[in-house]
Amino acid sequence: MDVLHDVPRSENPPAALRADTLHSSLGDASMESMNLLNEIADTYPTAVSFAAGRPYEGFYDVERLHDHLRVYCDHLRDDRGLTEREVARTLYQYGATKGIIADLVARSLAVDEGIETTPEAVVVTVGCQEALFLVARALRADDREAVLAPSPTYVGLTGAALLADLPVIPVRSHEAGIDLDDLVTRLRRARAAGRRVRAAYVTPDFANPVGVSMPVAARRRLLEIAAAEDLLLLEDNAYGLLGGASGRPPTLKSLDRHRRVVYLGSFAKTGLPGARVGYVVADQRVLPGGGPVPGSGAGGAGGDGDRAGGGPGTLLADELAKLKSMLTVNTSPVAQALIGGKLLAHGCSLAEANRRETEIYRGNLRQVLDGLGRRLGELPGVHWNTPAGGFFVVLTVPFTVDDDLLEYAARRHGVLFTPMHHFYGSTAGFHQLRLSVSALTPDRIEEGLDRLAALITACLPGAGSPVRRLPGGAA
Amino acid sequence: MDVLHDVPRSENPPAALRADTLHSSLGDASMESMNLLNEIADTYPTAVSFAAGRPYEGFYDVERLHDHLRVYCDHLRDDRGLTEREVARTLYQYGATKGIIADLVARSLAVDEGIETTPEAVVVTVGCQEALFLVARALRADDREAVLAPSPTYVGLTGAALLADLPVIPVRSHEAGIDLDDLVTRLRRARAAGRRVRAAYVTPDFANPVGVSMPVAARRRLLEIAAAEDLLLLEDNAYGLLGGASGRPPTLKSLDRHRRVVYLGSFAKTGLPGARVGYVVADQRVLPGGGPVPGSGAGGAGGDGDRAGGGPGTLLADELAKLKSMLTVNTSPVAQALIGGKLLAHGCSLAEANRRETEIYRGNLRQVLDGLGRRLGELPGVHWNTPAGGFFVVLTVPFTVDDDLLEYAARRHGVLFTPMHHFYGSTAGFHQLRLSVSALTPDRIEEGLDRLAALITACLPGAGSPVRRLPGGAA
Repeated sequence: MDVLHDVPRSENPPAALRADTLHSSLGDASMESMNLLNEIADTYPTAVSFAAGRPYEGFYDVERLHDHLRVYCDHLRDDRGLTEREVARTLYQYGATKGIIADLVARSLAVDEGIETTPEAVVVTVGCQEALFLVARALRADDREAVLAPSPTYVGLTGAALLADLPVIPVRSHEAGIDLDDLVTRLRRARAAGRRVRAAYVTPDFANPVGVSMPVAARRRLLEIAAAEDLLLLEDNAYGLLGGASGRPPTLKSLDRHRRVVYLGSFAKTGLPGARVGYVVADQRVLPGGGPVPGSGAGGAGGDGDRAGGGPGTLLADELAKLKSMLTVNTSPVAQALIGGKLLAHGCSLAEANRRETEIYRGNLRQVLDGLGRRLGELPGVHWNTPAGGFFVVLTVPFTVDDDLLEYAARRHGVLFTPMHHFYGSTAGFHQLRLSVSALTPDRIEEGLDRLAALITACLPGAGSPVRRLPGGAA
Repeated sequence: MDVLHDVPRSENPPAALRADTLHSSLGDASMESMNLLNEIADTYPTAVSFAAGRPYEGFYDVERLHDHLRVYCDHLRDDRGLTEREVARTLYQYGATKGIIADLVARSLAVDEGIETTPEAVVVTVGCQEALFLVARALRADDREAVLAPSPTYVGLTGAALLADLPVIPVRSHEAGIDLDDLVTRLRRARAAGRRVRAAYVTPDFANPVGVSMPVAARRRLLEIAAAEDLLLLEDNAYGLLGGASGRPPTLKSLDRHRRVVYLGSFAKTGLPGARVGYVVADQRVLPGGGPVPGSGAGGAGGDGDRAGGGPGTLLADELAKLKSMLTVNTSPVAQALIGGKLLAHGCSLAEANRRETEIYRGNLRQVLDGLGRRLGELPGVHWNTPAGGFFVVLTVPFTVDDDLLEYAARRHGVLFTPMHHFYGSTAGFHQLRLSVSALTPDRIEEGLDRLAALITACLPGAGSPVRRLPGGAA
């Protein structure tokens, strides 16, 4: 059988794809908007950036990377008795899907967070982002599933859910974090409409983008709601250690007595972003299925407490590892060794490892809040929240904050921020901007706040219709 | 509103999930089977393993990792003029989604494969596995899409497609690789049934699992079919450089004049697995969509050659990068630096960097083929193929080869292999086993072949019904 018709080559145009034939996530506004933010930042490299949520760079030193690697190799030799050949193999070869530093991760959670878990419940991932995707993918059996998340929310959650075709149901949030009454209302409404709501995503500590934290009473109530409503909680704790306040409330996971919490961790802010190492703790039991799925539940095998706590079935961590084996195979052992070495050098305490950085974040936050007060405290309609820690402050202004304003701010005033609408899926937040305080030095903060104040003053209503000066007349 | 009913805590069982409420890929037989293979390998660590397709370990040395890192940092300083602070930032911080070594990847493709591409068309990924998933995800707009792949095929392709909910249509293969007539038949049949067949996955060089290569005439014909049928080709070239034969046929990508080929590369076999670095070259144009999608096409904007080759739209690489930003953010810059350093140390030639290893793979392959001939050459119904390079040989036997036989082989004979049915989705291959020759030393190969011969001799029909001795009586 000859299926070709000898078409002359010149008649075959270069292959091209139509954008609307690709996965729907690529057409989503949030993907486009994050791209746009990066482009603006790249176009104005000398602007003072309150945009990027990056860790402080002042202590970066390539020699420390070599040190981290050496410390971890010494650990393999001295503490774990590996031969030189085994040490080399551990770093060079493919490794266990769940990771080679799961034990150290578990130790650091005990030391820093009072979370008691076992290495078996840990999957080391390519940053927290892979963990978010793995969980979203696992919890999406068909198009009935959905997850709850606060609005505004972290764009990484939005992206992971888009990639997994998992709808996100927005829940109101306020100065105490996610609104628990609204959460229950949305949950019940969605379930009544036939949705299988599996989980709620929350960042109790210094949430990105708003920087607020949940009081301990709200945490306890959220856990009770999760148990009563058969809901998993996806706790993202990228910033908890970076507040510095010693009286920080306990994490949801450390309060969790019913395995309701899937805990998502990142070493990007506390280790180093360039390792791309994060993890998920998923100690929930997965039991063999069968029979109809409860229409209103999280898919839980409720009432089967004995079996759930005991031997049969697998851990959710094992299921996530199976997905990971088909996604990235395993997290780079060398990258894990860098984080492992940093952990080992500080008694597995990231709080200890980040003492200097935490001082800087605390100082930067204070400086930004004070600086805003001095410059903008008297302006009508201009106000901001006062997080106790973390990387972010949200500023509210009485004019439209969109990407055109950002471009204008970068070009005319040399200052960058993140328009808050990006964290609302562009459905709200058009009078707010997020300031990230983490990566700047004191001088740059002062300079940046001056520029920001100039922008805001110029844009205030009554200041000569300044908004019309924006390119494209966006406002 | 108080939504809680004060349920006593003891009445809330630990959260458990029902397996059938999780993503369908987790219930797929292929996921289970790969897990089982790993478990058997872990249970019998002293067995001679012809199972794992791992690179040779004899030259592993942790000090070389430090060297790779130093060479790359010197390159940033000396060739690219970065300051010490910029060098540190490049390794420590988040980096460009498409990667920091895309330029070196493009250079190595020119040097080793005669592939001319630009860094802009390259996305550096967390191993080739992430690249496979990104492509599968991008090409899956809804449940009408499908891809073609040879049967048997690489389990990584199967897994990535499962994760992306993208059906794989199996195509016959033979000693010259994928059967091109069958490919066209399956393609047309699927399209006639309403499927949008977007692409065909192929490994022209030393394919996993069968080890065979496509002759150059077949490669050219495949490219012509792709152009005539508006099909993308996903070329996976993990092993091409490891054959050693200088007369190797050109890759599909190097022959590609119409941007039909999306090229998938891995540094796991040629760099080091522990870096988890791979890449995809995707130079196809993506044009803004609109209007109905052609029912029988790959979604291509056919006939629009000028625009496709020119400025408008984006590159498919840019779209894959957007997906990656929501999956793993970026590939660890430190891991990329390891590969970058190794490339730079060898003039960006992986063929050069792997001279010693290639000698070993060639010697191992010869030893295994000779050793099979000496031990099994006279046995009725026992035969094997003779690949010209790569890691794999397929052995056919006149009795059932399943996971029970593997367990039996490991326990009684101390030898491991991979039952071929795993590469057929357990629909065929039950008389074949894959031998991986890459990671063994000559002594272990001789020992392993002795053990394998003892197993096969014992299992041959007429050898005292040996198959009944298997636990569970699987055969």
